Amino acid sequence: MERLTSYEITVMFLALGILLATARVFAEVAQRWHQPAVLGEMLAGVLLGPTVLGALAPEWSSWLFPMQGRSAVALEGLTTVAIALFLLVAGMEVDLSTMWRQGKTAAIVGGAGMVVPFAIGFAGGWFAPWFLGWEGKLDPVLFALFFATALSISALPVIARTLMDLNLYRSDLGMIIVAAAICNDLAGWIIFAMILGMMEHQSGHGMGIGQTIVLTLGFAAGMLTLGRGLIHRILPWVKAHTSWPGGVLGFALGLALLAAAFTEYIGVHAIFGAFLVGVAIGDSSHLREQTRMVIQQFVSFIFAPLFFASIGLSVDFVRHFDGGLVLAVLIIACLGKVGGCSLGARWSGMPSHEAWALGFAMNARGAMEIILGMLALQFGVIHERLFVALVIMALVTSMLSGPMMQWFLGQKKTRPLGTYLMPRTFLNPLHAHDRFEAITALAHAASAVVNFHPETIAAAVRHREQLMPTGVGYGIAVPHARLEGITTPIVAVGLSRAGIDFDAADGLPAQLIFLLLTAPSDEGAQLDILAEITKIFRDAHIREHALQVNTYTEFLALLKSEGVG
Amino acid sequence: MERLTSYEITVMFLALGILLATARVFAEVAQRWHQPAVLGEMLAGVLLGPTVLGALAPEWSSWLFPMQGRSAVALEGLTTVAIALFLLVAGMEVDLSTMWRQGKTAAIVGGAGMVVPFAIGFAGGWFAPWFLGWEGKLDPVLFALFFATALSISALPVIARTLMDLNLYRSDLGMIIVAAAICNDLAGWIIFAMILGMMEHQSGHGMGIGQTIVLTLGFAAGMLTLGRGLIHRILPWVKAHTSWPGGVLGFALGLALLAAAFTEYIGVHAIFGAFLVGVAIGDSSHLREQTRMVIQQFVSFIFAPLFFASIGLSVDFVRHFDGGLVLAVLIIACLGKVGGCSLGARWSGMPSHEAWALGFAMNARGAMEIILGMLALQFGVIHERLFVALVIMALVTSMLSGPMMQWFLGQKKTRPLGTYLMPRTFLNPLHAHDRFEAITALAHAASAVVNFHPETIAAAVRHREQLMPTGVGYGIAVPHARLEGITTPIVAVGLSRAGIDFDAADGLPAQLIFLLLTAPSDEGAQLDILAEITKIFRDAHIREHALQVNTYTEFLALLKSEGVG
Repeated sequence: MERLTSYEITVMFLALGILLATARVFAEVAQRWHQPAVLGEMLAGVLLGPTVLGALAPEWSSWLFPMQGRSAVALEGLTTVAIALFLLVAGMEVDLSTMWRQGKTAAIVGGAGMVVPFAIGFAGGWFAPWFLGWEGKLDPVLFALFFATALSISALPVIARTLMDLNLYRSDLGMIIVAAAICNDLAGWIIFAMILGMMEHQSGHGMGIGQTIVLTLGFAAGMLTLGRGLIHRILPWVKAHTSWPGGVLGFALGLALLAAAFTEYIGVHAIFGAFLVGVAIGDSSHLREQTRMVIQQFVSFIFAPLFFASIGLSVDFVRHFDGGLVLAVLIIACLGKVGGCSLGARWSGMPSHEAWALGFAMNARGAMEIILGMLALQFGVIHERLFVALVIMALVTSMLSGPMMQWFLGQKKTRPLGTYLMPRTFLNPLHAHDRFEAITALAHAASAVVNFHPETIAAAVRHREQLMPTGVGYGIAVPHARLEGITTPIVAVGLSRAGIDFDAADGLPAQLIFLLLTAPSDEGAQLDILAEITKIFRDAHIREHALQVNTYTEFLALLKSEGVG
Repeated sequence: MERLTSYEITVMFLALGILLATARVFAEVAQRWHQPAVLGEMLAGVLLGPTVLGALAPEWSSWLFPMQGRSAVALEGLTTVAIALFLLVAGMEVDLSTMWRQGKTAAIVGGAGMVVPFAIGFAGGWFAPWFLGWEGKLDPVLFALFFATALSISALPVIARTLMDLNLYRSDLGMIIVAAAICNDLAGWIIFAMILGMMEHQSGHGMGIGQTIVLTLGFAAGMLTLGRGLIHRILPWVKAHTSWPGGVLGFALGLALLAAAFTEYIGVHAIFGAFLVGVAIGDSSHLREQTRMVIQQFVSFIFAPLFFASIGLSVDFVRHFDGGLVLAVLIIACLGKVGGCSLGARWSGMPSHEAWALGFAMNARGAMEIILGMLALQFGVIHERLFVALVIMALVTSMLSGPMMQWFLGQKKTRPLGTYLMPRTFLNPLHAHDRFEAITALAHAASAVVNFHPETIAAAVRHREQLMPTGVGYGIAVPHARLEGITTPIVAVGLSRAGIDFDAADGLPAQLIFLLLTAPSDEGAQLDILAEITKIFRDAHIREHALQVNTYTEFLALLKSEGVG
C-alpha cells in the first residue's frame, strides 16, 4: 500500500493538532463575545492560512498546510468526511413532525421566506452577473439559480441555538420559526443538489441532467418517507440484537457514509446523502438521546472545527475581499429574507414585532451558507470574490439574528448561574456559627464587587431573613434582598461543611449558602436565579461534589459540567 | 489546493461505508460467539482485502481499496488518525493509582510477566531468527529485541473487558491483574518505542539513537509526572471557562494530536504520544464520565473498526500463513506469559488456581499486539509471515483468556436479563384479573420453551406465591419457583397496563410481571435475576417506557439501551 512517510505523518498530526486547538480557542473567544462558534473556527483558518500566516511567513504556512502532495490529500480526505458527518448531525436536528404540526403558518412563512429571496436573488444574478463575480464561463441561468438558492437557505443549527439562548425554542413563535427553517433547508438543499447535477452535466461529467434530477428527487422523497419508516422499524431491532451503543452508532454512520457515496455518485455531492440520512434517523423516537449526543458532540466539537478552519485555509480573505460586493450581497440577502419572512408572517396574522423578529431569526445563514459557498467554489460555480462575500454575509446575518430578535421581542437572554459568580464572592469555607453570621460574612464578600457598605447589605438581607427563613431544604439556603441601585444581580456563595441552621422545612442545616442581591425593578431575576439554584443542587450527587471542591475554579467547573441539561 | 475528484470521493465514501458496516456486523457476530470484537473487525478486512475478495474478484477489491493513488492516501490518513485516537482511549483506561495501590504484588507479577516472556522471546529471536522470518537485512539484536517485546506486552482493554464479564473487575484478583497489566503495557510500549527509534537510526533517517532514547524516556516520564499534574490542574480551568463539553473534548484531542506529532517526530511513532496523553488525562478525576464516554464510544465503535478492518485489507492472510511458525509463536508466547505471571503470582503467595487464572488473563494480547505487529511490518522489522503469526497469536490468546479463567476460578459469566428473554415467553398485553390468572398465563408461555406441563409450573409458582406474595413494589412482581430438571433459568414477562394486585408492600398493582423458573441447585441465579429486575425497573422513567412498547423487540431494545451503567 502507498504509505505516508514518517515525515508526512508528523506534519499531518501537527497540522491537525494546531488546526483543532486554534479553532477551538477562537470558537471559545467568539462565544465569549456572544458570537457563533463557526466565526471563530473560520478565523482560526484565516489566521493559519494564506490570509495571515501565508502573508507573513509563506514557507511556514505551506510547510504545515501544503496545497499539493500526499499531506494535502490526507487532510482533504479527513475534512471531506468531517463535513459529511456535520451534515448528518445538522440533519438529525431536523424534526419533521414539528414541521407538520405547525402546518399552515410554517408553510406560508417558509414559502414566502424561500420565494422572495429566491426571486430577488435570481433577478440579481440574471441582471448583474458581472458585478457578482460571474466570469462568463458558466451558463448564466445556472449562475443566477445558484445565487438565488444561496440567498434562500437558512441555517437551522444557528437558528435553533439562538432560540434556545433567548428561551424561545419551545414557544409558539419558536416552533413556527424552526418549522419554517426546516422547510427552507429541505427545499434549498434539494434545489442546490440539482444545480450541482446540472453543473456536472455541463462540464461533460456525470450522468444526464434529467437522470440526476429524477434520482435526486427520488432519493430525497424515498429517504423522507420509505427510508424514514424503515429506519424507524430497524432501529429497535438493532438496539435489541447488537451491542449497545456500538450497533446504533455503526448503523447511523455506516448508512450516512453509504448514502454519501450514492449522492456523490449521482452528481449532487456526498453531504446531501449524509444530510438526508440524518433527517431520516434523527426523526425516529428510537434513536436515544445518548447516541444522538455522542455523535453530535464528537462531530460538533472535533470534526466541525477542523472543517471550518480548513475553509479559512483554502482562500485568501484579504486578497479576494471586495467591499462593494460584500455590501451588495449583504443588503440583497437581508432584504429578501427578512422581507419575505416578515411578509409571510404578517399575512398569516402575526403581530408586526413578532413578524420582524421572525424575519431576522430566519435571516441567519450560518454554517450552511458557508458549506454551500465552499462547494460552489470547488465546482467552479463562483469565484473567490463572491465566496468571500457569501461567507461574510453568512457570518453577519448570524451575528445580527440574536440581537435583532431581542430588540423586537424585548426578550432577555437567559444567563446561567455560573455567569454571576466571581472569585471574590466565593467563600470556601464559610466561617459562621449561625445564619446571621453567615449573612454578615457573605455581605462583606458581596460588598467587594458592588458599591454598597457591607452593613447596608447585611441589614437588608437580615431583615428579609427575619420575615421568613430562607432555608429551602436539601442543605441549601438562599438569603436575599432587593437593593435600589443594583444593576446586575450579585450572587455570593459560601460553603459550610458543618452546616448552618437556616430553619429549613426538612430540618437539614444548610451547607451551600447563596446570598442573592437584585434590583427591586428586576422582578424576574431573583426568581430565575433561585429556581436555577434549587434545580441544580437538588441533585444529591452534585451537592456532594460541590462540598468537595477546593477552589473557585473547581466550583465553576462543576456548575458548567453538571448544571446543564 | 489539490482536490479529490468526485469519483475519488465516491469511492472513498463507499469504501469507508462498506468497511465500517462489514466490520461492525462481523464484530457483532464475534461477540455473539463470546469472542473479542477485534476478531470480527479484522475478519471483515480479511474478507474485503486481498485474502478473499482480492482472490475472488481482484478488480473489485483493487477498485474499492486501491493500494496506490490518492484514495489510498486519504484512507491511510484516516486510519492513521483512527489508530492514534484508539491509543488515546486505551491510555485513558490506564489508572496509575490502581497500579500504585496494588504495589508489591503488582510489581512482582508485572515484572515476572515481563521478564520471563522477554527472556524467552529474546532467546528465540536470537537463536532461531530464520525460523521466525528474519530475512538477514535487519540487525539481529533489534529483531530479537522486537520479538521479545512482542511476547511481553498485554492488552489492557481486552483484559479489563474479560474481568468485567466475569464480574471480577473490582475484586482483589482483578485489581492485581489490571495493575500488573498496566506495568506491562507501559514498559512494553516504552521499549518498543525505543526499538523503533533504533530502527529509524539504522535506516539512516531520524536523529541519533541516544537522542531518541533520551527523548522517549524523558517524554514518557515527564508526561506521567509533570504532564499529568499540569493536566489535572488545567482541566478544572478548561471546564470552568470554556463551553461544555467542547472545551474539554477539544483540549484532550488537540493535546493527543500534538503529542502524536511530537513522538512521530522523535522517531517513535505517533501512537505513543497519543497513548501517553490518554494515560495522563484519563488519570485526572476532573475528566468527567460523560466526556470519557463520548470519546470512548466514538473511537471504539467507529475509528477502531475502520482501523482493524484496514489491517485485514493490507495483508494476504492465506498466502502468508505458515502453520509451523504460527504454532511456534503461539506456544512460546503462552509459555512465557502464562508461566512468568503464574510464577510471579505463586511467589507473592497466591493460591495455585488463582495464579493460573491470572496467568491466562495476562496472556491476552488482543488489539495491542496487532498494532505493534502492524507497525513492525510497516517499519520493515518483520515480514508478513511473522505478522500473520503474531496476529493469530494475539487473537487466540485473547479468546483463551476468558474460558481459562472460568475454568480455574469456577467463576460464572454474568448474563444480563435480556439474554433470558424470548419472544414466546413475552406476553403483551397479559390478560388476567388476579395474580393467579397471571401466573397461569405466564406458566403456559414458559411451558413452550421448557419441557414441563404448564400446570406443573403454575402449581409450583402458585404454591410459592401463597407462602409469601411476590409483589416487590414499584409496580413490579416476580412470581417464581424452583423446579428440578430446569437447566438454564427461564424468565417469562407479562405487561399489564391495568395492573394486577400482587400484594406489594407499597400497595401498587403490578404492571410488569416476571415469572422466574430456576433449578433448585442453582442458588445464585434466582437472586441475581431478581436483583437485576429490581435494579433496572426501579427507575420510573424505564417502567413508563416499558409499558409503552408494542413488540418484543422494542422491549428487548429498551432493556439493552437502558439496562446498562
